Amino acid sequence: MSAIISLSEIKKVLAEIDLLAAMERAFLNYSSGNAVVPPVGELVFENPPGDVHIKYGYVRGDDYYVVKIASGFYHNAQLDLPSSNGLMLLFSQRSGELRAILLDQGFLTDMRTAAAGAVAARYLAPATIQRIGIIGTGIQAEWQLRLLPGIVDCPRVLVCGRHHQGLQDYCQRLADTGYEIEITDNPTEVADCCQLIVTTTPSCEALLRYARPGTHITAVGADTAEKQELDSAILAGADKIVVDSRAQAQSRGEAYRALQAGAIALEQMIELGEIIAGEQSGRDNDEQITVADLTGVATQDIEIATAVYESLLQNAD
Amino acid sequence: MSAIISLSEIKKVLAEIDLLAAMERAFLNYSSGNAVVPPVGELVFENPPGDVHIKYGYVRGDDYYVVKIASGFYHNAQLDLPSSNGLMLLFSQRSGELRAILLDQGFLTDMRTAAAGAVAARYLAPATIQRIGIIGTGIQAEWQLRLLPGIVDCPRVLVCGRHHQGLQDYCQRLADTGYEIEITDNPTEVADCCQLIVTTTPSCEALLRYARPGTHITAVGADTAEKQELDSAILAGADKIVVDSRAQAQSRGEAYRALQAGAIALEQMIELGEIIAGEQSGRDNDEQITVADLTGVATQDIEIATAVYESLLQNAD
Repeated sequence: MSAIISLSEIKKVLAEIDLLAAMERAFLNYSSGNAVVPPVGELVFENPPGDVHIKYGYVRGDDYYVVKIASGFYHNAQLDLPSSNGLMLLFSQRSGELRAILLDQGFLTDMRTAAAGAVAARYLAPATIQRIGIIGTGIQAEWQLRLLPGIVDCPRVLVCGRHHQGLQDYCQRLADTGYEIEITDNPTEVADCCQLIVTTTPSCEALLRYARPGTHITAVGADTAEKQELDSAILAGADKIVVDSRAQAQSRGEAYRALQAGAIALEQMIELGEIIAGEQSGRDNDEQITVADLTGVATQDIEIATAVYESLLQNAD
Repeated sequence: MSAIISLSEIKKVLAEIDLLAAMERAFLNYSSGNAVVPPVGELVFENPPGDVHIKYGYVRGDDYYVVKIASGFYHNAQLDLPSSNGLMLLFSQRSGELRAILLDQGFLTDMRTAAAGAVAARYLAPATIQRIGIIGTGIQAEWQLRLLPGIVDCPRVLVCGRHHQGLQDYCQRLADTGYEIEITDNPTEVADCCQLIVTTTPSCEALLRYARPGTHITAVGADTAEKQELDSAILAGADKIVVDSRAQAQSRGEAYRALQAGAIALEQMIELGEIIAGEQSGRDNDEQITVADLTGVATQDIEIATAVYESLLQNAD
């Protein structure tokens, strides 16, 4: 019999899970070739604008295969709905039977993306951070910051958004965190005074134009061929270009846009899993410019879905 | 709120649905370009052997987009489980919200595949059929025959399987239909005396070697790059090669195998939707050899999932 797991059950059990450790396993499995991860399935809608990503695959020798459907419909605020949505499905690798439906409404995708940002910061953020910069004021802008304590201990934050109301709401939502959050509508200000920057918007044109030495940027917003938050010159000038997947970087995300622009070469890209495995170095010194372009890989969904399901099974014992 | 619909609810409502009309719409939408149907997602497992197909897409202007996951694990009989499994998911095209989970366990895939076979027979079977031939004894071998009455009125059937027990079970399961079913383990016997043949196995080597004039063959078993039930010489010698999708025929199924073998050219293939639309003719006379190679397209899943969900909504009113 297959379990149907509600968002409230998922939220309850997630507190018991070491998300960063799960994401490190995810990137290791991805880069070691131990996982079977076909290209992302994609549906694009025009009116209203939306995109759907289907990420699926399995780790060899595991019990499950996972299919994750995640959508972003960017006019959903007009319907009083969050923009992201989705669910995850676990099936048996031995029989194809459905084991669990995780009705997470996109929450697990948000959480694994935020946890991946924290992992990138662990390996790539400079030692000295005066200010954390966040581009965007949505759910991902929120969780990227919430998962940083313990990895990066910097209380000062500059958040950048187009609309004053969005910025105000953001500050209010994060009032419980202890961060001192300042606001701006100018991305250049973030580039000038932040050493760890996370970009989280669905923008289709570059928001950040340059990066100063000693900056790490994690870009999680651009996950299609069209979206872009970083000028390709930033990647061209970076000391390290880190991606979750070289294969995916050939068709989506910042690295794809920079490749298309002829600003960088595929061989320059390092996979995050190669750094975690110790095959490649992360940041070498505090002067380097590093960029992590994360478009999201199915092994992240496999790890988080499996961790949630197995925790629930254990709790049920 | 999303509805979770059980197999028994699905079976109840399916009796009210005109499946053949739904499949004709599916093929029309597919061939007219009115649907967005990306390439099939696929996972292949080796031990135990299995494959999973993810078919997804939407018809422009409809309410829903659909994702269907269907698996075949061919050693499942050892676990006392059916080989096929799966589910279908309906989401809103306007917000990405999940509308319904159809826990059909592969049943809707079986039904829409069988209904597609009946549609192919409607346009391509010769007027005179002395005997219907079925290759295989599984669930698809059963439903292909169950949906033929009203399309092809021939009571005599020759079913071909490798194992005597499977053939006996098949005859027993279909005892309620009124068909006079004979059995054989020799596919050549089917080629020699049947004018409408449906092949339904997951074989990876050709079972039928030739087709006599006046034969129509519908092949539904081969839906990957590896599977094959028809010798490519059959397609090379056919007067009409009909596929559900020319795009898919370039990567899976009988037409793909014949293309690879250099036995046929892509331009020879006609889409079933083009015949239904009247843009191409179906069978022209009783002497022709025709082949319909159906690998299954997402528009079929969209039509059947939408029909089931909307019938349930209407019944709930």
